[in-house]
Amino acid sequence: MKNNEKTGRLSRIVDFCRLVDKEKFIRRRTYLTDGERFENDAEHAWHLAVMALLLSEYAEEEVDVLKVMSIVLIHDLVEIYAGDTFAYDTEGLKTQKERENAAADRLFSYLPEDLGMKIRALWEEFEADATPEAHFAHTLDNFQPMMLQAATDGKAWKEGGRKLSEVLGRNSRTARGSKALWEFAKANFISPQLDNGHLMRDTDLK
Amino acid sequence: MKNNEKTGRLSRIVDFCRLVDKEKFIRRRTYLTDGERFENDAEHAWHLAVMALLLSEYAEEEVDVLKVMSIVLIHDLVEIYAGDTFAYDTEGLKTQKERENAAADRLFSYLPEDLGMKIRALWEEFEADATPEAHFAHTLDNFQPMMLQAATDGKAWKEGGRKLSEVLGRNSRTARGSKALWEFAKANFISPQLDNGHLMRDTDLK
Repeated sequence: MKNNEKTGRLSRIVDFCRLVDKEKFIRRRTYLTDGERFENDAEHAWHLAVMALLLSEYAEEEVDVLKVMSIVLIHDLVEIYAGDTFAYDTEGLKTQKERENAAADRLFSYLPEDLGMKIRALWEEFEADATPEAHFAHTLDNFQPMMLQAATDGKAWKEGGRKLSEVLGRNSRTARGSKALWEFAKANFISPQLDNGHLMRDTDLK
Repeated sequence: MKNNEKTGRLSRIVDFCRLVDKEKFIRRRTYLTDGERFENDAEHAWHLAVMALLLSEYAEEEVDVLKVMSIVLIHDLVEIYAGDTFAYDTEGLKTQKERENAAADRLFSYLPEDLGMKIRALWEEFEADATPEAHFAHTLDNFQPMMLQAATDGKAWKEGGRKLSEVLGRNSRTARGSKALWEFAKANFISPQLDNGHLMRDTDLK
C-alpha cells in the first residue's frame, strides 16, 4: 500500500471508533446496582465482556472466549441507528430485524471492507444464534440484566408490572448457552422476586 | 467437586460480577463526543476493547488480541476501591501505586483463588508494561481519550489549561505500543488543538 492509502485506512477505522461513542448514549431499561440510573449500551457490553472472561467455564459447550468477547462487545452497535428495542416491547420487536439490518448496512460500511465484513459476521453470528459462542453470548445477555434486577430488588420488573411468563419467554434459550447459569438465575434472581411479589407469578417456575 | 462447592464457586464469581457494576459510577475527566458528560470507567474500558478488536493490526509487535482485550476490560477495576487518579494530578499520582495495590488485594480476593490470580496477573501485566500486549493496551488507553478530546475540540484541555509538555509526558510511551497510532494522534488530535490554542504550546511537537 502507498502511504496515503495506509493513512486512509487508519482514518476510516478511527472515524468508526469515534462514531461508536454514540453507544454510550443509548439507554436500556435496566437499573444499575444503585437503583437510580438506567444502564447504557456501552456499559452493558463491557459488563458482558468481563463476564465472558469470568464465566466461560460454565458455557454448555467449549467456547472460543475471544469470539464470545468480540460478539458481546459489538452486539448492540446497530442500535446506534436502529435504537434499543425493549425486550418486552411487542410492537417494536416486529420491526426490529428490518430496522437493525438497515442499520448494519449503514454502520459497517464506514469501515474498510475487510473489517466491516469481520464485524458484521460477528453480529450476524449473534443474530443467527447457531454456534456455541452465540448461544453463550445470548445467555450472558439475558443473565446480566437479571443479575441487576435482583440487585435492585426487582425494581424495573415491579415498575413495569412484569409477569413470570414474559421473563420465561425472553429466557427460552438461556439454558442452551449454560444450564448452570440458567439454574442459578432461576434460584437467585427470579424466585426471590416472585416471593416478594415484584414479579407476577402467572405461571409456574420449573 | 460436590454440588454445593460448585454452587459456592459460581456464587462467588457472580457476586464479583455484581460488585464490578460500581465501575460504571467512576467518572473520568474526558468528555464524551457530545461534549456534555464525562466518561465513566466502564464506558472507557468498553471503548478500548472495541478499539483493540479494530486496531490491533497497528500494534508495533504482533499481539494476542484476547489478552489485550482482557487487559483493557479489567485495567481500571482497582479504581472501585482506589478511585480514579487523574492523569495530571501530580499529588494523587504519588500515592496511586500504593492505593491501587491495596485495592487489588481486597478486590481480587473476592474471586475463587485461581480466577483471582488470573485477573490479577492481567492487571499486573498492564502495570508492569513489559509485554507487547501491555504496550498496546497502554497505547489504546492514551489514544482513546485524545480521540475524544479532538472530537470535543479540546474542551477538557482548554478548561484544564493543559500544556503540550504535559500531554507529551503522559504519552512518553504511546509510540512503543504503536508508532502508527502515535503519529496519527500527533497529526490529528494534538496538532489541531495547538493551532486553535486549546492546548498550550510550551514546547515543540516533534
